[in-house]
Amino acid sequence: MSIRVPFETVKATIKQAFLNEGIPEDVAEECARTHAETSLDGVESHGLNRVPRFVDYVRRGWVDPAAKPELVGGKGAVECYDGHLGPGITNARFAMSRACELAREHGIGCVSLRNTTHWMRGGTYAWQAAEAGLIGICWTNTESSMPLWGSTECGVGNNPFCMAIPREKGPIVLDMAMSQYAWGKVGVYRLAGKDLPYPGGFDAQGNLTSDPAAIEQTRRILPTGYWKGSGMAIALDLAAAAMAAGKSGADMDREGRGSCTGACQIFIAYDPYLFGEHDAIQAMFDDRVAAADATAPANPAHPVTCPGERTTATRERNLAEGVVVDEAIWQQVCELAEGTSEGIEDLSSVDVNKK
Amino acid sequence: MSIRVPFETVKATIKQAFLNEGIPEDVAEECARTHAETSLDGVESHGLNRVPRFVDYVRRGWVDPAAKPELVGGKGAVECYDGHLGPGITNARFAMSRACELAREHGIGCVSLRNTTHWMRGGTYAWQAAEAGLIGICWTNTESSMPLWGSTECGVGNNPFCMAIPREKGPIVLDMAMSQYAWGKVGVYRLAGKDLPYPGGFDAQGNLTSDPAAIEQTRRILPTGYWKGSGMAIALDLAAAAMAAGKSGADMDREGRGSCTGACQIFIAYDPYLFGEHDAIQAMFDDRVAAADATAPANPAHPVTCPGERTTATRERNLAEGVVVDEAIWQQVCELAEGTSEGIEDLSSVDVNKK
Repeated sequence: MSIRVPFETVKATIKQAFLNEGIPEDVAEECARTHAETSLDGVESHGLNRVPRFVDYVRRGWVDPAAKPELVGGKGAVECYDGHLGPGITNARFAMSRACELAREHGIGCVSLRNTTHWMRGGTYAWQAAEAGLIGICWTNTESSMPLWGSTECGVGNNPFCMAIPREKGPIVLDMAMSQYAWGKVGVYRLAGKDLPYPGGFDAQGNLTSDPAAIEQTRRILPTGYWKGSGMAIALDLAAAAMAAGKSGADMDREGRGSCTGACQIFIAYDPYLFGEHDAIQAMFDDRVAAADATAPANPAHPVTCPGERTTATRERNLAEGVVVDEAIWQQVCELAEGTSEGIEDLSSVDVNKK
Repeated sequence: MSIRVPFETVKATIKQAFLNEGIPEDVAEECARTHAETSLDGVESHGLNRVPRFVDYVRRGWVDPAAKPELVGGKGAVECYDGHLGPGITNARFAMSRACELAREHGIGCVSLRNTTHWMRGGTYAWQAAEAGLIGICWTNTESSMPLWGSTECGVGNNPFCMAIPREKGPIVLDMAMSQYAWGKVGVYRLAGKDLPYPGGFDAQGNLTSDPAAIEQTRRILPTGYWKGSGMAIALDLAAAAMAAGKSGADMDREGRGSCTGACQIFIAYDPYLFGEHDAIQAMFDDRVAAADATAPANPAHPVTCPGERTTATRERNLAEGVVVDEAIWQQVCELAEGTSEGIEDLSSVDVNKK
């Protein structure tokens, strides 16, 4: 069951939960704001829902909430940082912020981060670049959670890739994981007794299926675009690990710590007005998006949109009416904030995102 | 019907066809080599098969074979060139070569190219970076050829995205278009009277289908990963057009010239040894790829591989046994080389790629 809770209540409750764990005030503030804003944008799976798991990781020592990113080295528009297992959110926000500064100075900026932790919603940092007026590209590697195309066992991470365009009428933001459906989404459909809208994995007979229980049984979740998402996932992993001189997904598999513990992440920012006038570039963005959105919808009730366009509307509605939260997870976070929680049960695979 | 023709014969024949069109010798050599090498690697759709169309574009004035890329401006690791509608292959090879030079100097190099033409196989330039020892990323925008997710009419280009990892035991190279199947592939299956292996578009009732004729009828080809490939295609278009301050896909649609005429392309190279030792990075690549390849195959006859790994074997076999060419297209190119061709029929939608 989902309920609506005012944004400020969500944020303050998460922050108190973090403060109770001894997380420094500035880190608690930034992480709580990002978790709350992620749910505000309708991506509950990586917002409120990940708070208990983050607390769990802090308690296990997989995240060091006091660690700060440290410069490993740099050359021109490129810098590399060691995240020292600090919070994924603060490490990643810092890295994209540096990439933006480098882009303002050099035209392009590229920051690589190693030994970091789960950044929650990858789109956060693409939005960050777009809100700073820059094109942003970012990706992370992760432990293996998906079989490569043609394989029956997990061999590659579901490494998300994000890209943002700073359109002033509303950024266009791609936030794309490499499996067709997140594991959490598969669980939601199973609990609801529904099939997935499109095939999302393989059954025990090796056939594509939309039956979520069959996919959970084989653990053969489907790469997006079959061989394409599989190939992109391994390429992103190799590139991230080399660019940050850090761990690959295979290294993380051997260490067997929490999701994304020790991951490498890449943040690229680019000044879109290097070779074109501001107004001309913005007019091109508006024209391109308008042409896409003007194509005939398959269902007249669902106009065609570009990624990110609907997020602003979701954000405004949730600000006015309250953030949609899963009742069980909200209860758990409230207990963490009240200090009445005994242990942590990770409910985050219950993805209440209704998108 | 396909036959095998020695690589040097394929290359020399294509080159003669180009020389007959008045294409300068150095351009004819580089373009012929790239078309022939693309077929050699097993990607006939963008190799030999595109030769007649390229000649057609030259005759129509959509490609200026004598044009050279001209520097628009630069800042640090970034440069922008105007391709002046020169051959897509020579423009793109030049641009990736400059990106590699910039990467050696600055750690990263980013070259944007506007007013260029069809680059044929995008993977060519990713391979180029990998063979130079660098990580390469490149993409292009194109005219609309695919409906956005939720739309019934073409509204976005099938903009390919490529990524290469310079693994010395064999590069890992992703070359990924944004539709699940190329139009050419759909035609091949229809001609063969076969269904596509997986759904590749929508039928007249708006249902996903594997029937190639039904997809050709609606023109609703499927974005790879449904909403994901759709979103990535529009993000790549906007980014390319801004970074090169050039035409978007919507601009190209309005001009209605040949495929990719006036396109923008982005070439990024990155030095993988900036922050890690050469041997350690190569060992990480080998370890990561080995772990992926060691996962259990769904079909024991088809070992799990990473993208690019099988290309080297295909190349060696085709060098030894001859390049696989479609007989009708080969005949057409031979006539262009002999100067006996009257007109040009574009057969390139007959994709003889058997992969």
